[in-house]
Amino acid sequence: MKSIVGNIFGITLCALSLSVSAQNTFTDKVNPIIGTNGMGHTFPGACVPFGLIQLSPDTDTIPHNINGQYQARAYEYCAGYQYKDSSIVGFSHTHLSGTGHSDLGDILLMPFTGELKLNPGTATDPDAGYHSRFSHDTETARPGYYEVTLEDYGVRAQLTTTERVGVHKYTYPKGEEKQLILDLNHGIYNYDGKVLWANLRVENDTLLTGYRITNGWSRVNCVYFAISFSKPIIKYGYTDKKKPLYTGFWHRFKVNENFPEIGGRQIVSWFDFGTGSSDELEVKVALSAVSAGGALKNLQAKTAGYSFDQLAEIANRKWNKELKVIEAEGTPDQLTMLYTSLYHTMINPSVYMDVDGKYRGLDHEIHQAEDFTNYTIFSVWDTYRALHPLLNVINRQWNTDIVKSMIAHANQSVHKALPVWSHMGNENWCMIGYHGVSVVSDALAKGLPINKEEALKVMLSSSTLPYYDNLDVYMERGYIPLERTGNAASVTLEYVYDDWTIYQAAQAMGKKGNRR
Amino acid sequence: MKSIVGNIFGITLCALSLSVSAQNTFTDKVNPIIGTNGMGHTFPGACVPFGLIQLSPDTDTIPHNINGQYQARAYEYCAGYQYKDSSIVGFSHTHLSGTGHSDLGDILLMPFTGELKLNPGTATDPDAGYHSRFSHDTETARPGYYEVTLEDYGVRAQLTTTERVGVHKYTYPKGEEKQLILDLNHGIYNYDGKVLWANLRVENDTLLTGYRITNGWSRVNCVYFAISFSKPIIKYGYTDKKKPLYTGFWHRFKVNENFPEIGGRQIVSWFDFGTGSSDELEVKVALSAVSAGGALKNLQAKTAGYSFDQLAEIANRKWNKELKVIEAEGTPDQLTMLYTSLYHTMINPSVYMDVDGKYRGLDHEIHQAEDFTNYTIFSVWDTYRALHPLLNVINRQWNTDIVKSMIAHANQSVHKALPVWSHMGNENWCMIGYHGVSVVSDALAKGLPINKEEALKVMLSSSTLPYYDNLDVYMERGYIPLERTGNAASVTLEYVYDDWTIYQAAQAMGKKGNRR
Repeated sequence: MKSIVGNIFGITLCALSLSVSAQNTFTDKVNPIIGTNGMGHTFPGACVPFGLIQLSPDTDTIPHNINGQYQARAYEYCAGYQYKDSSIVGFSHTHLSGTGHSDLGDILLMPFTGELKLNPGTATDPDAGYHSRFSHDTETARPGYYEVTLEDYGVRAQLTTTERVGVHKYTYPKGEEKQLILDLNHGIYNYDGKVLWANLRVENDTLLTGYRITNGWSRVNCVYFAISFSKPIIKYGYTDKKKPLYTGFWHRFKVNENFPEIGGRQIVSWFDFGTGSSDELEVKVALSAVSAGGALKNLQAKTAGYSFDQLAEIANRKWNKELKVIEAEGTPDQLTMLYTSLYHTMINPSVYMDVDGKYRGLDHEIHQAEDFTNYTIFSVWDTYRALHPLLNVINRQWNTDIVKSMIAHANQSVHKALPVWSHMGNENWCMIGYHGVSVVSDALAKGLPINKEEALKVMLSSSTLPYYDNLDVYMERGYIPLERTGNAASVTLEYVYDDWTIYQAAQAMGKKGNRR
Repeated sequence: MKSIVGNIFGITLCALSLSVSAQNTFTDKVNPIIGTNGMGHTFPGACVPFGLIQLSPDTDTIPHNINGQYQARAYEYCAGYQYKDSSIVGFSHTHLSGTGHSDLGDILLMPFTGELKLNPGTATDPDAGYHSRFSHDTETARPGYYEVTLEDYGVRAQLTTTERVGVHKYTYPKGEEKQLILDLNHGIYNYDGKVLWANLRVENDTLLTGYRITNGWSRVNCVYFAISFSKPIIKYGYTDKKKPLYTGFWHRFKVNENFPEIGGRQIVSWFDFGTGSSDELEVKVALSAVSAGGALKNLQAKTAGYSFDQLAEIANRKWNKELKVIEAEGTPDQLTMLYTSLYHTMINPSVYMDVDGKYRGLDHEIHQAEDFTNYTIFSVWDTYRALHPLLNVINRQWNTDIVKSMIAHANQSVHKALPVWSHMGNENWCMIGYHGVSVVSDALAKGLPINKEEALKVMLSSSTLPYYDNLDVYMERGYIPLERTGNAASVTLEYVYDDWTIYQAAQAMGKKGNRR
């Protein structure tokens, strides 16, 4: 490791067991704004290492398609935020980092004052909706913390997170009505009908629960939430922007205002906390892929009794603890490049399990993890070469959990296949190869405590799916003929490499024979 | 009880503990065809007392609405079947009995031979789809058993059920390809978009799992299934009749044929079992509102190792056990009327819980029942007067479970309200009054083992919802003025009666004071 990058930065790897000072010497060197302009597809918002929550501003709402017609500009918004934009549509809780296709942007909040607008508006026409202008001068982004002032409303927004909870602190102008949008229709790579269903319950005047199910890159993505407010709701309401074809007998109620439950496909809701007491509103948003009850447990487990500032400090400490694994010397720019890159290696995969060990598996069923923490967002074609080998050096526990999550994924797969590209309990089949076998083989080679027989079994089943990307002919001939596909050479090379890693694992286990 | 109907039929109530002969003396007197023509809204198919499954032929597919326009003829098909029709579209697993609005018709199977058709067709044009003509001459309907011959295919179809499993036995013409439609789009009171999502996995060549979520009278109805076949699938396929606006990278596969998983909004699938071995195919369809794993447990718990004939005999015995509670004398017509009516009192409510005690509550969360069996389908305005009081006489355990289910419903409700009209874990708000309080009060008066304090609490919360059907003005004035609603007198009378039942319960508990 040192030999590769040490001569550039003078890096020393620190064993995690060494104690280091609590100074902000590492998080200070990270600039989350890097990669947020153009096609870097990073986000500037708050998260903790490998957390479920990436709480970040979204600056526009370009849909993936309109009536099935792909919108090329959607690609700019893979991570929701473009540095060149000068307005923000709100703060959503899930983001992909650095990907070339997209999804998520779940559960968007936007504080506002004055006139109620239930449309988001756009970056080019922010006044058409609840968008607000902002200046980068008011923006602070550091690991686990993001801050910006929303000019149109004069609201200072501060964000931090735990693994499973997004924490918002909004400071409204004195005497103004403290209002908030909760948009259950907003999403990245959105399209008409992406939200299959959204449900919202106002449990009491400081607690909401609900869920939404989307059909995007993650084919059936279930996001449950529990949202607590530091102040009581005075009044609230919703609109369903999609005219339902069937409403049954719910028309008996005025469901649009102060009615404590709603369901629909394009729900945008608003909450008014009045002008009284202080001008601050704290909002905690816990997510779960399992249930609203799971989200409530997640909410209570790690945030109860902590102030916003304490939670931001805890997030900062988590990042310092992980970033200190490399101690480097160099110019400020070199150190910023290194530590920001290191920061970017610890955003995805993300934990995908409630505090009680329950998680939603690839079979869309709820499972109980017995001996590992379940992770998701496996962009394996991007990560098999460097990320997992790096984690095997700097944090073996994480990669152990990740590899166990991948093997659980394979066992839950109807194909018995390791992840190709999967997120939120769904295989999305992006990119080529079956590089999950490389990740597992490397984990075995590096001595991670993985069940070897089980590992080899799913490596073999992953590499013998006849209906997967010309594997039938590859298994027969040992290569893919050009007549079959234009990328025959690339795919053949990927398969040959992947098979070599299976061979290495089998050989180390003393196995003989042909995988086919 | 005897004084009311005894002079008509000479009825004697038998204590359930008495032993009776195992002769089919009671099921022989039931004719499930009664009520299936015109607006009786009963179904002729197979079920067991209060079972989750009502496996019955559907004869047409008139949707509830087309582009939001109500289709008046849908009302004829509340229970899926009209005696006047001469063709059948298939056998679906859930039906309401005797209702004046509708839903369900989940998980339709249709055996066929010859040409594959993926559209259902209609009663008036059966050849347009997989519909088949039939003659009532080939039809047998008795409690727990239904049989018909599908003329177009020469397939004899026999149906029976357990509480949670529908069991099909199809006898195909000799030498014909044994084929089967599984239509995940079919439904009663269907409309374009009612199916929010359907998912299907071919786990192996004799087992399917999956689910579908519908947005109908039950606002978010989750139906999971596990389907086992007595013969291996030779080939299979699907179509999604709704063009998806986003498919991600699933286009890498030929998902339409022999690909083991599919998801979509209008999925119709087909399975081919070849011509080999015998001409019989047995299919077991287990449902669960909890999970596919729950459906698998339900499948294995009560059907493993039993033949179709044995299961039909068990269903028959279950009905005899319940029907024998009344021993009556009279003319054959009088006895058929009595025992068919008694049969109809034991179809809904229906059990809504897996064999392991897990169930989906009104909050859409999964709960574990500790000391009761959870039931659903509470058409309370129809049942508070007679059904629950009858059950208090003939089967107190059932009504105990039903009342406990209603109280659980209230505790899970964001309104803390007992059922008005609810089914499949969703309140549908049909009809007037809050007659759940009458059911609970009657249960207390008759000494069912219900927690009294908890019961009174939810009776009070059910009767004090200011936003429910003019309850605000009723609570203020003691009546609803005509200016508020055209049915002011009816609603006032219902509320006054309901409140009287609360008063009776409170008085018996020695409580004083005003409910408001």
